[in-house]
Amino acid sequence: MTITGQLLIGAQRVRGANGVFHGIDARTGELLDPSFGGATLEDLERACALAEAAFDAYRETALEARAVFLETIGEQIEALGDALIVRCMVETGLPRARLEGERARTIGQLRLFASVLRNGDFVDARIDLAQPERKPLPRVDLRLRNIAIGPVAVFGASNFPLAFSVAGGDTASALAAGCPVVVKAHSAHPGTSELVGRAIACAVRQCGLPEGVFSVLFDSGRELGQALVANPCIKAVGFTGSRAGGLALMTIANGRDEPVPVYAEMSSINPVLLMPGALTARGDAIAQQFAASLTLGAGQFCTNPGLVLAVDGAALRAFEQAAAAALAQAQASTMLTPGIHTNYARGIERLAAQQGVARLASGLVGGRFDGQAALFATHARNFLAQPVLREEIFGPASLIVRCSDVSEMHTVLKALEGQLTVAVHLDTNDRDACRALLPTLERKAGRILANGFGTGVEVGHAMVHGGPFPATSDSRSTSVGSRAIERFLRPVSYQDLPDELLPEALRYGNPLALVRRVNGEVKQRGSHDG
Amino acid sequence: MTITGQLLIGAQRVRGANGVFHGIDARTGELLDPSFGGATLEDLERACALAEAAFDAYRETALEARAVFLETIGEQIEALGDALIVRCMVETGLPRARLEGERARTIGQLRLFASVLRNGDFVDARIDLAQPERKPLPRVDLRLRNIAIGPVAVFGASNFPLAFSVAGGDTASALAAGCPVVVKAHSAHPGTSELVGRAIACAVRQCGLPEGVFSVLFDSGRELGQALVANPCIKAVGFTGSRAGGLALMTIANGRDEPVPVYAEMSSINPVLLMPGALTARGDAIAQQFAASLTLGAGQFCTNPGLVLAVDGAALRAFEQAAAAALAQAQASTMLTPGIHTNYARGIERLAAQQGVARLASGLVGGRFDGQAALFATHARNFLAQPVLREEIFGPASLIVRCSDVSEMHTVLKALEGQLTVAVHLDTNDRDACRALLPTLERKAGRILANGFGTGVEVGHAMVHGGPFPATSDSRSTSVGSRAIERFLRPVSYQDLPDELLPEALRYGNPLALVRRVNGEVKQRGSHDG
Repeated sequence: MTITGQLLIGAQRVRGANGVFHGIDARTGELLDPSFGGATLEDLERACALAEAAFDAYRETALEARAVFLETIGEQIEALGDALIVRCMVETGLPRARLEGERARTIGQLRLFASVLRNGDFVDARIDLAQPERKPLPRVDLRLRNIAIGPVAVFGASNFPLAFSVAGGDTASALAAGCPVVVKAHSAHPGTSELVGRAIACAVRQCGLPEGVFSVLFDSGRELGQALVANPCIKAVGFTGSRAGGLALMTIANGRDEPVPVYAEMSSINPVLLMPGALTARGDAIAQQFAASLTLGAGQFCTNPGLVLAVDGAALRAFEQAAAAALAQAQASTMLTPGIHTNYARGIERLAAQQGVARLASGLVGGRFDGQAALFATHARNFLAQPVLREEIFGPASLIVRCSDVSEMHTVLKALEGQLTVAVHLDTNDRDACRALLPTLERKAGRILANGFGTGVEVGHAMVHGGPFPATSDSRSTSVGSRAIERFLRPVSYQDLPDELLPEALRYGNPLALVRRVNGEVKQRGSHDG
Repeated sequence: MTITGQLLIGAQRVRGANGVFHGIDARTGELLDPSFGGATLEDLERACALAEAAFDAYRETALEARAVFLETIGEQIEALGDALIVRCMVETGLPRARLEGERARTIGQLRLFASVLRNGDFVDARIDLAQPERKPLPRVDLRLRNIAIGPVAVFGASNFPLAFSVAGGDTASALAAGCPVVVKAHSAHPGTSELVGRAIACAVRQCGLPEGVFSVLFDSGRELGQALVANPCIKAVGFTGSRAGGLALMTIANGRDEPVPVYAEMSSINPVLLMPGALTARGDAIAQQFAASLTLGAGQFCTNPGLVLAVDGAALRAFEQAAAAALAQAQASTMLTPGIHTNYARGIERLAAQQGVARLASGLVGGRFDGQAALFATHARNFLAQPVLREEIFGPASLIVRCSDVSEMHTVLKALEGQLTVAVHLDTNDRDACRALLPTLERKAGRILANGFGTGVEVGHAMVHGGPFPATSDSRSTSVGSRAIERFLRPVSYQDLPDELLPEALRYGNPLALVRRVNGEVKQRGSHDG
């Protein structure tokens, strides 16, 4: 499949007429062919109008049909073969193994949502049966189901060019919910985006779905994305990126005549707590794991361990030495874009220039756009006094905060903003101290993990990839795992409707064999109650 | 129990020093004793700080303990006896039977959430078991539960002085979720609010809960409520009131350093569709029900039928005549406040002055602050041309829109903003036409009802009292029924935590006997999996 640089507006491939930009070889900074035409506002309006036109039909497709559609997308991505991996490697600088793994994860995500559709519990079918004899007033027949919220705008993320981009988690969960999707592709990997977009368009055609179910728009600036969020056809937004970017989209969405929810994943420094027992018993081993997690993917994970909290003393100093030694040997690797590399370099310069901040280690120097690992340390009092030290630096840099005791670790934790993850390294003798911290951890983060690092994010049913602001714009949701579908649903209640007018999910005799809640009690699939 | 005019800040009763206001006899406009002292910002901060201090303990109270607390609130409200009803009648002008019914509903709501707590499904306990042998990487142990979002600000509504005020649906669902509540009492029924507030404070004491679980603040202006939403301890807001009021709170909540969700129920005209078959077959009967629904509680329901859509012709004209005749005989009744009465009177004057709008009927004239029923009619083209005709008039007024055919009814529907309810009156021969409208109805409203009126709102499991903007600020939720608890929850995931550090809901052996989702499959209470 040749990359053309064209937009995908429903079934149409068209050249965007709003300026020209190129993909960039992340390693060399060279422009890649072909050029991409930026979408005009007319292109955008056409894509949104198609999504709107497709919505009512698409949201009522059978659950099985939608499951097959998601699986077909996965097959079509697989069918792109090595061309996808090769192009993606060039555009992002990420190595083959990582991208092959990410592709598997992307396809796995689509399959997870296919299973969520076949299971059907997300419909939350509920029936309160009529009680015509009730006094003083008879009770009506009430039935509830979740329906899709409407067309969704998805912004591709730079750091997961497959798993959180064109066919990534936001797209998969929105399509599963029954929402058409208009993707604003990330300009850092346009070729990858086109290939994946065409795989989805293929699946739309193959499954006989309305073309408006899916479009991909390209643009190298910000205006298109802003117009997308402002478009009245769009009813929800999925975004992964910078805090400034997320906040800008939230402002637009809140300022619309009809405000719409924005699910923005923005900023997290993912504190790592080294509890005294664990630090003493196995500080060196943890230091090795820490260095590996910090430098994984050039540190470009939302769950990168950017902050370490521990009680100062010999054990912490030994940990620092071990981590510094490991990081001093860490290979630099290419960052996603020259711009990200520049921001990273500035970020560590800024951090190094802060009062009371010591640089403990610098990784090996690499190519022109490679991110060099960096480790810093400061004291808790200094950390608390300088809010700038709490800001995310996107890349393989971390800051160790030396605390006088566990209580000061707690104080530092309380001063932090919301986080995607908090990792706690603990041994049996740390459990009581850890128990006292847990309520704070729950309030600060979407995921609490023991004796590990947050950089691995399982795609399952019990995953929360979310958390209080500014980790995300909406702590009530997750962007990874099966609960991600809930972001794109809203409940509708039907009162006394004739059975033939009810959606199948709520009809007498339970024709879809769903698990339904009847008068508040869960009834299994076999039950025909209601 | 004597009404004192004091604030309730946790366990303390204190006189507010920020100005003085009185409850008002809704019928006469006379000031009622005693005077109420408005809360200062210091009072507000104290209430919020107490809520924050109580949060971690309260959210982890046992489900059974929280259920008993809600039931105890109900008992304490019952124990207020007739004094509550008498004071509430004077403050609101609502009749005894309505308020006795509303009290029963309020207590019923508390009991519903007690049952939701004992059931425990709202915790959404999920376990993805570890797979140490998985290739290429082992799978970690992941467990998810919902936790309370934090202290909640609740604004009492004027039109449900019991069921949507101090101990109303927002308070009941927030307390059930594990959130402390700070109520900003509505200045239209301060005596009622104090009595109910003290009943809750009694229950807090009786159940041995931290005092900060509940506070009530009084104020006759807007500043206090705005400061409440801006307070960093507050993590969510429940509001029922005007569109302007809700929008102002949304703006404050979105502009905070940490934005928080606002659940505002604001504005709905609740279209009633009279399908041709039903209109011809039983237009007269529907007209009688319509007039009764429109004038119920002086038309001061959020679900009041403010708009009627039907195909013009002899059947509609007969309906209009019957409805007009019924409304001409409708007694006026006291509105909730003199201010609401003034706004209503202005609203119908404005409507009457619009081009192409005919007044079909005026109800009987009543007392000085009574709302006189009013019925208007216009043509669809005129309705579509004048957006002002789509605005809610709070009170017993409705507008009939004469359409040239069902397709024009559809066009009018599509032009409407989001609604709490849409009612469809249909006979068997209307079903096909109705089926074609359903996708639009689902997109416009939270509840679709057949052959009835929306003014009855069942408190159950399948109720949605919500809907797209501006019916509410968040179409993903309901403020009535058991799903209301979801508004005040957020998910947290625990990875590889030692069993003794896990919350009980997620521990090995299922000690709380919850229904849990293990590896994606629902396991019943008996199951000890995971």
